Amino acid sequence: MTELRNLLDANEEYSKTFEHGKLPIPPARRIGILACMDARLTVEDFLGLKTGEAHIIRNAGGIATDDAIRSLIISHELLGTKEFFVINHTDCGMLTFSNHDLQRKLKEKYNEEAGNIEFHAFRDLRDNVRQQVEKIQTTPFLPNIPVHGFIYHVENGKLEQIV
Amino acid sequence: MTELRNLLDANEEYSKTFEHGKLPIPPARRIGILACMDARLTVEDFLGLKTGEAHIIRNAGGIATDDAIRSLIISHELLGTKEFFVINHTDCGMLTFSNHDLQRKLKEKYNEEAGNIEFHAFRDLRDNVRQQVEKIQTTPFLPNIPVHGFIYHVENGKLEQIV
Repeated sequence: MTELRNLLDANEEYSKTFEHGKLPIPPARRIGILACMDARLTVEDFLGLKTGEAHIIRNAGGIATDDAIRSLIISHELLGTKEFFVINHTDCGMLTFSNHDLQRKLKEKYNEEAGNIEFHAFRDLRDNVRQQVEKIQTTPFLPNIPVHGFIYHVENGKLEQIV
Repeated sequence: MTELRNLLDANEEYSKTFEHGKLPIPPARRIGILACMDARLTVEDFLGLKTGEAHIIRNAGGIATDDAIRSLIISHELLGTKEFFVINHTDCGMLTFSNHDLQRKLKEKYNEEAGNIEFHAFRDLRDNVRQQVEKIQTTPFLPNIPVHGFIYHVENGKLEQIV
C-alpha cells in the first residue's frame, strides 16, 4: 500500500482551481517560522497564513539546528524576512525519549554506529523554546532580528507566547 | 512594525473552532514529507493533507541535510512513518546564488567567517531531487522505505514526479 496515488490525485484537484501562479519569491509578510514537523501542527492554518506570505521551516522538535539557521540566513539575507517565530508544542514526541536510548536502539537494530547523531530530544518544553530563540539571536549573521518563541497547545489549538 | 499581534489574533480565531484536540502523535497516513521552506508552497493544501496525517519537514531547498535525515529517522523509528516524499519546486531561490558568493557576502557584511556554512545552493533542479532521494535511500537507518521525488510547479500548482 502506497500513498503516492492519493497525493497525486489530491494535487490534480488542487491545481484545477490554482490561483497563486504570479506570486514573487520573497514572502509577502517578510516573516520566517521555525516549527516542529508534528502532524498535528498545520502551521499556516493556526497562524492564519496564506500561500506566499511566510517561509516555513520545520524539523523534529522545532529546533534551531545548524540547518534551520542555514535556512533562516538564506531567508533573511537573500529573501528579505525581518522577523522570526519559533514554535514548539505540547505532547511533543521529543519529550518521550533520550538521545542515548535512540542511538543505542539504532545500533542494535541496524548494527551500525549511530552515536554521532544528535537527535535533540529535550525534557523541558519552555526551556527548549528559550534555547532555540537564544541560538537564533546569537547567530552573527542574524543580528537585530526580532525572534519570538511560542508553545502551541495541541489540545486546544492555542499559542502561548514564551519569549 | 511587527507581525506578532496579527499572528496571535489569527490564532485566537483559529482556536475558537478547533476540533483536532484528540489526535494521536503518530501521523494517521504514516507518511513524511520533505519540502522547501518557500512561501509559495502550502504543502498540506497541494497534497490534500489534513491536520494529523503527515510529518512535514521543510528547509531551504528541500534538501536531505543531516538534520532532515535526523527528523526522518525519528519519524520512522519512533512514530511509524513508512513512506517519504521529497518535494523541490520551480523558481527556487536556491537556483539563484552560489555557496561561495553567499559565504563571501556574509563575511564582508558581518566581518565574520562564513566559509564553514554549506548553503546547499544547486544548479539543476531535477538532479537535485534525485540526489536528495538517493541520500535518504542510502541512509543505513532508513532501509526499505519507499522514497518518491517531485518537482512542484509554482506557476500552475502541479506536481511532477521525478523519482
